[in-house]
Amino acid sequence: MPKAILYTAVTLDGYIADSNGGIDFLDHPLFRLPDEDYGYNRFYEGIDAVIMGHNTFEKIKSFEGSYPYPDKHSVILSSKNTLADGVSEGIEVCNDPAEVALANLTSRFDTVWIVGGGATNAKLHHAGLIDEMILTYIPTTLGAGIPLFRSNETMSNWKNIATKTYPNGLVQMHLAKA
Amino acid sequence: MPKAILYTAVTLDGYIADSNGGIDFLDHPLFRLPDEDYGYNRFYEGIDAVIMGHNTFEKIKSFEGSYPYPDKHSVILSSKNTLADGVSEGIEVCNDPAEVALANLTSRFDTVWIVGGGATNAKLHHAGLIDEMILTYIPTTLGAGIPLFRSNETMSNWKNIATKTYPNGLVQMHLAKA
Repeated sequence: MPKAILYTAVTLDGYIADSNGGIDFLDHPLFRLPDEDYGYNRFYEGIDAVIMGHNTFEKIKSFEGSYPYPDKHSVILSSKNTLADGVSEGIEVCNDPAEVALANLTSRFDTVWIVGGGATNAKLHHAGLIDEMILTYIPTTLGAGIPLFRSNETMSNWKNIATKTYPNGLVQMHLAKA
Repeated sequence: MPKAILYTAVTLDGYIADSNGGIDFLDHPLFRLPDEDYGYNRFYEGIDAVIMGHNTFEKIKSFEGSYPYPDKHSVILSSKNTLADGVSEGIEVCNDPAEVALANLTSRFDTVWIVGGGATNAKLHHAGLIDEMILTYIPTTLGAGIPLFRSNETMSNWKNIATKTYPNGLVQMHLAKA
């Protein structure tokens, strides 16, 4: 049974980035924990494809180093159907609605990582297509920013499969659609 | 040392109520756990006063039964300095800014519960006056609603004192200003 998993860090007040799209808060010295990857490598090994909005793709390209998901099939949602740079083999630009693109992806790949951002998350949340969420809560509050789900007014309930607290106070919840 | 504690339930995506101010999601059958009060009674015994916005006060008054905090000093923030009904002994209506009202309260009482709602929480968050937070995450996402902190663009870091997961999947975090 294919599934789509939203794996993301989130502040205590539900933001995935600050108002400028920045994620500096993820690297605050208070919360550094050397050699801890919060289960990322194991998670990454288990996925077959990634899907993300074009803003998230641009953000990821702005980071140092090469594209971090070269060994997975990537779908970048873009209404323009073009992206300036950085599109290479294995990276598919798709102008379908997010829910169509994801349904298409889960028909071809077993486990899909929903990378973000807020708008893509919201559309997939609204469509009921998020099967699982792995949310890592950073002990930070921002008061404003890009919400986990950009406004979409959809109530969903979740089954909490596991909660893990790290020594630096981060709390990771693994949730499946209830 | 007096302290002000924000004790509230919050959805996974950071909302304390739906877009209409409703909190029905708190009582969803999926998450019912008979005889579990999530530490409420112990918390309540330890506080001396409560502070809340007038919308929250009106909401609480709309619930069945009498005012739930009769044995604590109550401050209701209201720019109008009048409230239609329900103000009785021990309930002080205050038209000071939230941060002034709270500072005044912590000069007279040892432990103050910040009851909410989003606007009051935001002002006190922005003023750096929230000493501790006890946040109970409900395994629900709403996609939209009244955020924990109504937009206030203030980054704060927190020390995670304790995390507790309940059998129904609710996760309570106790946090202190870092």
